[in-house]
Amino acid sequence: MPVPKSNLYPDFNIVRLSHVEFMVTDLAASKAFYVDTLGLQITHEDSENVYLRALEERNHHCIILRKGQKAEANVLGFKVYDEPDLDKAETYFNDKGLPTEWIERPHQGRTLRTRDLHGIPLEFYARMEQLAPIHQHYKLYKGVRPLRIDHFNCFSSNVDDSVAFYNDLGFRVTEYTEDEESKKLWAAWMHRKGGVHDIAFTNGRGPRLHHTAFWVPNPMAIIDLLDLMSTTGYLENIERGPGRHGISNAFFLYIRDPDGHRIEIYCSDYMTVDPDMEPIKWDLKDPQRQTLWGAPAPRSWFEEGTTFADTEICDSQLAAQPIVAP
Amino acid sequence: MPVPKSNLYPDFNIVRLSHVEFMVTDLAASKAFYVDTLGLQITHEDSENVYLRALEERNHHCIILRKGQKAEANVLGFKVYDEPDLDKAETYFNDKGLPTEWIERPHQGRTLRTRDLHGIPLEFYARMEQLAPIHQHYKLYKGVRPLRIDHFNCFSSNVDDSVAFYNDLGFRVTEYTEDEESKKLWAAWMHRKGGVHDIAFTNGRGPRLHHTAFWVPNPMAIIDLLDLMSTTGYLENIERGPGRHGISNAFFLYIRDPDGHRIEIYCSDYMTVDPDMEPIKWDLKDPQRQTLWGAPAPRSWFEEGTTFADTEICDSQLAAQPIVAP
Amino acid sequence: MPVPKSNLYPDFNIVRLSHVEFMVTDLAASKAFYVDTLGLQITHEDSENVYLRALEERNHHCIILRKGQKAEANVLGFKVYDEPDLDKAETYFNDKGLPTEWIERPHQGRTLRTRDLHGIPLEFYARMEQLAPIHQHYKLYKGVRPLRIDHFNCFSSNVDDSVAFYNDLGFRVTEYTEDEESKKLWAAWMHRKGGVHDIAFTNGRGPRLHHTAFWVPNPMAIIDLLDLMSTTGYLENIERGPGRHGISNAFFLYIRDPDGHRIEIYCSDYMTVDPDMEPIKWDLKDPQRQTLWGAPAPRSWFEEGTTFADTEICDSQLAAQPIVAP
Amino acid sequence: MPVPKSNLYPDFNIVRLSHVEFMVTDLAASKAFYVDTLGLQITHEDSENVYLRALEERNHHCIILRKGQKAEANVLGFKVYDEPDLDKAETYFNDKGLPTEWIERPHQGRTLRTRDLHGIPLEFYARMEQLAPIHQHYKLYKGVRPLRIDHFNCFSSNVDDSVAFYNDLGFRVTEYTEDEESKKLWAAWMHRKGGVHDIAFTNGRGPRLHHTAFWVPNPMAIIDLLDLMSTTGYLENIERGPGRHGISNAFFLYIRDPDGHRIEIYCSDYMTVDPDMEPIKWDLKDPQRQTLWGAPAPRSWFEEGTTFADTEICDSQLAAQPIVAP
Ligand SMILES: [Ca+2]
Ligand SMILES: [Fe+2]
Ligand SMILES: [Fe+2]
Ligand SMILES: [Fe+2]
Ligand SMILES: [Fe+2]
Repeated sequence: MPVPKSNLYPDFNIVRLSHVEFMVTDLAASKAFYVDTLGLQITHEDSENVYLRALEERNHHCIILRKGQKAEANVLGFKVYDEPDLDKAETYFNDKGLPTEWIERPHQGRTLRTRDLHGIPLEFYARMEQLAPIHQHYKLYKGVRPLRIDHFNCFSSNVDDSVAFYNDLGFRVTEYTEDEESKKLWAAWMHRKGGVHDIAFTNGRGPRLHHTAFWVPNPMAIIDLLDLMSTTGYLENIERGPGRHGISNAFFLYIRDPDGHRIEIYCSDYMTVDPDMEPIKWDLKDPQRQTLWGAPAPRSWFEEGTTFADTEICDSQLAAQPIVAP
Repeated sequence: MPVPKSNLYPDFNIVRLSHVEFMVTDLAASKAFYVDTLGLQITHEDSENVYLRALEERNHHCIILRKGQKAEANVLGFKVYDEPDLDKAETYFNDKGLPTEWIERPHQGRTLRTRDLHGIPLEFYARMEQLAPIHQHYKLYKGVRPLRIDHFNCFSSNVDDSVAFYNDLGFRVTEYTEDEESKKLWAAWMHRKGGVHDIAFTNGRGPRLHHTAFWVPNPMAIIDLLDLMSTTGYLENIERGPGRHGISNAFFLYIRDPDGHRIEIYCSDYMTVDPDMEPIKWDLKDPQRQTLWGAPAPRSWFEEGTTFADTEICDSQLAAQPIVAP
Repeated sequence: MPVPKSNLYPDFNIVRLSHVEFMVTDLAASKAFYVDTLGLQITHEDSENVYLRALEERNHHCIILRKGQKAEANVLGFKVYDEPDLDKAETYFNDKGLPTEWIERPHQGRTLRTRDLHGIPLEFYARMEQLAPIHQHYKLYKGVRPLRIDHFNCFSSNVDDSVAFYNDLGFRVTEYTEDEESKKLWAAWMHRKGGVHDIAFTNGRGPRLHHTAFWVPNPMAIIDLLDLMSTTGYLENIERGPGRHGISNAFFLYIRDPDGHRIEIYCSDYMTVDPDMEPIKWDLKDPQRQTLWGAPAPRSWFEEGTTFADTEICDSQLAAQPIVAP
Repeated sequence: MPVPKSNLYPDFNIVRLSHVEFMVTDLAASKAFYVDTLGLQITHEDSENVYLRALEERNHHCIILRKGQKAEANVLGFKVYDEPDLDKAETYFNDKGLPTEWIERPHQGRTLRTRDLHGIPLEFYARMEQLAPIHQHYKLYKGVRPLRIDHFNCFSSNVDDSVAFYNDLGFRVTEYTEDEESKKLWAAWMHRKGGVHDIAFTNGRGPRLHHTAFWVPNPMAIIDLLDLMSTTGYLENIERGPGRHGISNAFFLYIRDPDGHRIEIYCSDYMTVDPDMEPIKWDLKDPQRQTLWGAPAPRSWFEEGTTFADTEICDSQLAAQPIVAP
């Protein structure tokens, strides 16, 4: 199935991905990872929750760590342009027969909870509590110097269907991988905010969250993080990289948090605000697709992911295989 | 006058700044500067013109060098979202009593020529000839490794009026400098594409083009350019920097082309897609406003600029003085 | 066998490693690799030979490519402090029963040819033709921006014996790997010039040249080379890395030239001029020994190397196994 | 007077510069600067003294801060190769009619105190207390990530005489500035350890310590320090830079500690271990001598310096003027 034509006039205006809420089994261990090691900033903290923002963000949070029995992801959050977009969103999802609910969320304005076609829990809001800028408080910069949340990547049991769904929401495909035989999509990268993606979908047992990515200033910050993690007890948390992606051209590193939630550290992709930018197609069998420099990803990277709370998952029917490290 | 409230629903949708056309007196000298030294890529060349793009751009050109008797800027180009936006733009400018004209431009689709409130020649188009991606053709990377055009900065004889005009076009103010005494704007940075600015205005004899900026991967690319320029006969073309701007937080360098057109090399500002992001206010007398590290700009930087073709200029009435290097 | 005590008063004064001569089967292909891709500078060229220097070197050559039927290494070159050191060296090697010969070498002064204990062909000279500095000719910087030759690494069938031999020559051990069971040395890094090493020895079928390393300004230069090689037909020539070594703390990349000669790109080890600096011991089974970040080296890296011309090789008796990538 | 021929066989063997002792008027303020801001590591601390080392050093200290009434430098320390070198040094300085004294210094072995021709207090030792390596304790890296002390630079009232004195000690000139008219030396850079210099001399009222330099990994560390200092109350302590030196080709920044002691942050000069390396000559009127990119140094940089304890100073007779910023 070919990549669908971009929907330049979606029913409501999503600005960008915004935040994720993780259930974590040991709040102290998670804080040591996200705050002391990665360098995210605490904006609210109580006995059950830690709210974090990255260094150039003014919205109250991009990640919420919540103490729980089971490591999973509760919701993916997106910011819409204006209050009326929320009401249009409610209508839109209702018309699709998807569940909608207005919920209370600390530090957020009106918040609409729903699910995508495969059940991924989503929430939309227009206004979040705004905090004073800290991007020039350089004494706060440490770890990998995270500047902002960049994207989500999800396993999808049917990437073609996921792409059709998000395409209708106005997400535009920038790059994609096709299985040459079935002509089905194996993976796709889709954006709203003008980078390579706000969300990507990869073929696999789903829906599951593959990873959440943070934008950092440059590759040197990633090398610094590797040096730090490998000498402070986090050697086993380094999963893949560093390297240059073929797709997106970004410099990357994949790490795992203490509960196994996968975090990507990411920088230097390219600007995609032009609505007439043609998507770039990659062959699943191209060894430079994943890593421009040729190194394949390990098996864990293809198989492991975070389940969403109260969400059923199923196998993908697309059996095509990427190149996996031996 | 306070910064106006953002217009979230402008009459037509401008995506981003797109290109500039410079009249240059020696095409070979300009090519040596823009192509051999900066590393921009030639996309079309004839005896009178050189069209250039940066390394991640797919639009045919971001800068046109045109042989002429007098060094000036012919036009600032902007890309709109879709064809209907062009027609809405025509109506908009006509309603304002500003001149409009449909013109033929090589490698561009329908193109609307007009002027802003102070006479700056502007052109709008929706679709430009798309070229194949070259951002992974790493053998092309040289000089300062320019990735894309980033912004224009113009002298304005009345910054408050310029800001009101562009604000109505949907440009949103991210940072600004106020004269404490008169409460007038001394400078403002305004964006469409989600960075700190697509266009900025600085108080001074105007309208004139202060500079055109290119985005590069990181500060190391700027250091490389300084090393290169200072050992290949371009020492006198280095005007200001390198440094970190207080405003925008970007790392910068200002250089002059062989005709004196000012180019900024720029990287690492921050993302501004959120429509509720509050503008940051700076005091004209804050020494860290221009350069976070404290070094003032030289007099030439405040006084010299490129005139626009067939455009009258006048002095500013705002006499407030920034900090100038001795 | 423990690491021997440094010999602070060797019989003659070796300043540093200097150069290597490679037999290559296709001179044009080798030039494309060393000159166009790595960025080394040609200092002499004829139909049979290409002499190269790196960007901060003033000696005429650090690498000689010589056209031949068989890819091998002819000799490892070392610079001594002064002319009398050459005569002392002749006496020293004669006393050890090793062959010595005074030879003619273009662009070098008096040159003494000999062999080490295992037969590695060595040559010593005090003065080489000096060229004008080019380190500030920044237009010459390209590829990986090689600044100087840094070290050799050789397979040795008996590392303890190699270390004893070079220790007596005044090379000082900075780091080493011991096999915990046999207490034999598995590898050692030894220096004269004040870095982690001028020469290292690794257990294996030998003597063979494992690799020759070039020093570059910083990790970004290595990332640039990876981007360049992976998009200009050299994907298969990337063997291992990038990464941070545990041993030496250097940032590294291993690549193979068109004949399979292994080149390391290397930067940011540490200064070792203090004669009382204690060597650092590593366990062969420590996964961070090779790569601080934990990634093991591939099998080819442990097994493949360049033979020396007219030199017999034999297996090592030390069977201990390092960690090899699956 | 031309630069003297290097003395390849000095009477005793100096390995490198080693340490400086500063009198500081506010120990807490100095700690905030050297430890919290620059990132040096405390190795000993009591109510009167703070001993510091940089991250790749194993010797106990490279800088001693000592509480006192007056900001001055007590001594410049140098490490010699072996114990017998100390006795040879005693004889050497006695023969020159210079004062010698064996003193007790905590954490150092036998220490010989003397003065140079102009009265600079010097101390020599062979062995200092060795500490465990911390260069791979990456959680300790902060501030500018100082790796090691690199060099001293002193005002000299007669640079020709200073060069002759240190040349006889085996220091070799790598670069120098000559006054075209008088043919006298205006400045010279001299090394023992294989970099551009361990000590340099600049014409001026002397002897005074112009600055002490620390080596850092790369220019990004210097940019990080500028961002940090300019947002943590140290804006006025930034004196000159960042920039690339013409002389030495190093990337630099000059800052002042709370007492005005000048510190240079320095990286990426070149290797100079070859005894036949020709010194590079610069003209005092070459604007690229100080800064390759053309920016002149401010007047304070030429005039201010740290006096040595109990040491008389006098004016230079060489009146030649360098280029000073307006
Ligand atoms: Ca619709
Ligand atoms: Fe990703
Ligand atoms: Fe700008
Ligand atoms: Fe090596
Ligand atoms: Fe210096």
